[in-house]
Amino acid sequence: MRTQVAIIGSGPSGLLLGQLLTQAGIDNVIIDRVSKDYILRRVRAGVLEEGMVSLLERAGAGTRMHAEGLPHEGISLAFDGRDHRIDLFALTNKRVMVYGQTEVTHDLMDRREAEGRRTIYEAEDVVPHDFDGNGPFLTYQKDGQTHRIDCDFIAGCDGYHGVSRKSPPTSALTTFERVYPFGWLGILADVPPVSHELIYANHPRGFALCSMRSPTRSRYYIQCALEERIEDWSDDRFYEELRRRLPEEQAEALVTGPSFEKSIAPLRSFVAEPMRFGRLFLVGDAAHIVPPTGAKGLNLAASDVHYLFEGLQEFYAESSQAGVDAYSERALKRVWKAVRFSWSMTMMLHRFPDTGAFGQKIQEAELDYLVHSKAASTALAENYVGLPY
Amino acid sequence: MRTQVAIIGSGPSGLLLGQLLTQAGIDNVIIDRVSKDYILRRVRAGVLEEGMVSLLERAGAGTRMHAEGLPHEGISLAFDGRDHRIDLFALTNKRVMVYGQTEVTHDLMDRREAEGRRTIYEAEDVVPHDFDGNGPFLTYQKDGQTHRIDCDFIAGCDGYHGVSRKSPPTSALTTFERVYPFGWLGILADVPPVSHELIYANHPRGFALCSMRSPTRSRYYIQCALEERIEDWSDDRFYEELRRRLPEEQAEALVTGPSFEKSIAPLRSFVAEPMRFGRLFLVGDAAHIVPPTGAKGLNLAASDVHYLFEGLQEFYAESSQAGVDAYSERALKRVWKAVRFSWSMTMMLHRFPDTGAFGQKIQEAELDYLVHSKAASTALAENYVGLPY
Repeated sequence: MRTQVAIIGSGPSGLLLGQLLTQAGIDNVIIDRVSKDYILRRVRAGVLEEGMVSLLERAGAGTRMHAEGLPHEGISLAFDGRDHRIDLFALTNKRVMVYGQTEVTHDLMDRREAEGRRTIYEAEDVVPHDFDGNGPFLTYQKDGQTHRIDCDFIAGCDGYHGVSRKSPPTSALTTFERVYPFGWLGILADVPPVSHELIYANHPRGFALCSMRSPTRSRYYIQCALEERIEDWSDDRFYEELRRRLPEEQAEALVTGPSFEKSIAPLRSFVAEPMRFGRLFLVGDAAHIVPPTGAKGLNLAASDVHYLFEGLQEFYAESSQAGVDAYSERALKRVWKAVRFSWSMTMMLHRFPDTGAFGQKIQEAELDYLVHSKAASTALAENYVGLPY
Repeated sequence: MRTQVAIIGSGPSGLLLGQLLTQAGIDNVIIDRVSKDYILRRVRAGVLEEGMVSLLERAGAGTRMHAEGLPHEGISLAFDGRDHRIDLFALTNKRVMVYGQTEVTHDLMDRREAEGRRTIYEAEDVVPHDFDGNGPFLTYQKDGQTHRIDCDFIAGCDGYHGVSRKSPPTSALTTFERVYPFGWLGILADVPPVSHELIYANHPRGFALCSMRSPTRSRYYIQCALEERIEDWSDDRFYEELRRRLPEEQAEALVTGPSFEKSIAPLRSFVAEPMRFGRLFLVGDAAHIVPPTGAKGLNLAASDVHYLFEGLQEFYAESSQAGVDAYSERALKRVWKAVRFSWSMTMMLHRFPDTGAFGQKIQEAELDYLVHSKAASTALAENYVGLPY
């Protein structure tokens, strides 16, 4: 088989890139290790920046998002027993869209199917070849046979554990990492959210986040030790701990109900540089991971897609290599800004075992300054709604 | 002897408080463990916020400062081989005044002498008594005799190592501390400064600061390990290391010359709460220490003086205890904001042994974001020029 761009990974970044390429008349094939149903069962993030919203519109996959998604104009920072709203829209003239990543993926898959574009699921042993020359190709196993896809470019949209980042020689990559000494214990439950906007809570017992997927589905998180076991956390215990970390008003307003998903996720910052090796590009989680604080992971994948799409479009429409050559540098510039923001939100909101009472006071002073300074609130807001592409 | 306010410590905060009280017709005596000459030989900070400049004017000690001090409208942040100016005045409509603490002290001492107010130097074993009741007094030894000063209030302006903070029972104080794993190696030299404004440099080899006392006297610092010994740092070695940490243009412009002061200072954040125990008040370094990054130490002492002076004036002019009762809370609110700012400048600019390559990249991303975002630059600037009293 031959295509112009072979995309490894059928998550939102691979699908979004595929859709943008298709609309620009550039042929592409998506290949994934797992099944469509498996991908759609994954629970993921749900706050989209306007940049990503625009890309989804452009990809023709924005209709249901605009009908069912929740545009948010603010967030709350809760600390020291009080709750302070950051008016994102007043400060930046931008909103964010609360719409689950699973829904984004679903819409993009539907769109791809409507366009009749090919996705190969359950492909085993996907391997990128010869991307340092002019004739790259992929091989994979399916139905007991070895298949080959020849292409001009390979887009590695296959996440942190995918094959793409592991394909260049180790010596060609520089990696940067910080592992945080805690995790997030999260639940999904069909109960109305405690507030119509997200609440990020700093508390001496640890961070808490009240998020949502819809007006009837809540997503709640509490910071926990990495050693915690799900089995030890009944719904009652979870809600009780969450309540203790919220200001009184929110704690009293919390509606509880059985969770249908419960998991513990570690927090990590990770960046691999560069993001391009000849004709292989790393996109999204394949190149970088951010802690979920501030909801940047999916949005950063979208900005990578934007830069890569621009480069590929330039290549095919104008026979210019410039945008492709600039991809890594352009993408990384924004990546590091979001990595910094996620890191700083994480540092400001979580309990760290080694910073003690001084650390807690500094966080409260930082939050107190932030909510009372227009400049500092604006700096938070402009990062939260997303820095420009 | 009897006075209204007994002030322990003849540094700038004690002298400023004394002068403001004198101008308001409130009697005061200053007492110090060391001699006038000793105090004037101490090398200290030299960047004054407008709030402090106003207080010095109000104290009648602003004439020489305005004649000889250097009003600065910006600072430079240097990183990644480049130099970026933060236009403090454009962002905040405020300036800072470069004028050495020793000069401030000198001017205040001159003023106090002109007013004929009493300062007792070389007083040994100063002890505050009965400040939890209505009849506080100080005792001290001088010329082989025990002396006593009865007063209404005691102001502890005697620094981190002074007796004031050690006088209340330990159980009455809560302390918060962070010790940084490095120091500043600093020199004073009669050479023209490399730039007419301060340069704060982040470099993989460590932080550097190019400051000044006058157009012909430079104050340079480099981050160093706490184990470094002054003897190992010739002027040549110092200048060579400084040059390596500056962008090329500044490194080339550096004029060198023999230093006449060289020392290593540790960096620490420290806060003791509360700042009032009955009729004893802690002021400035007696209650809190900040790392020198951002030049907040002296300015914070001045804002403490402001709040205490307001309280005492209210007490004597209006027979109201309210301002005195509110002193600790009002002062600490601003103290924590400056402690936070000094901490965050320190974190952003220094090499930390435990954060590695990720830490360096995060700092560069933070600086890059900061110098290109008006909101973030404004947040830095409003803290640097000083938050309102």
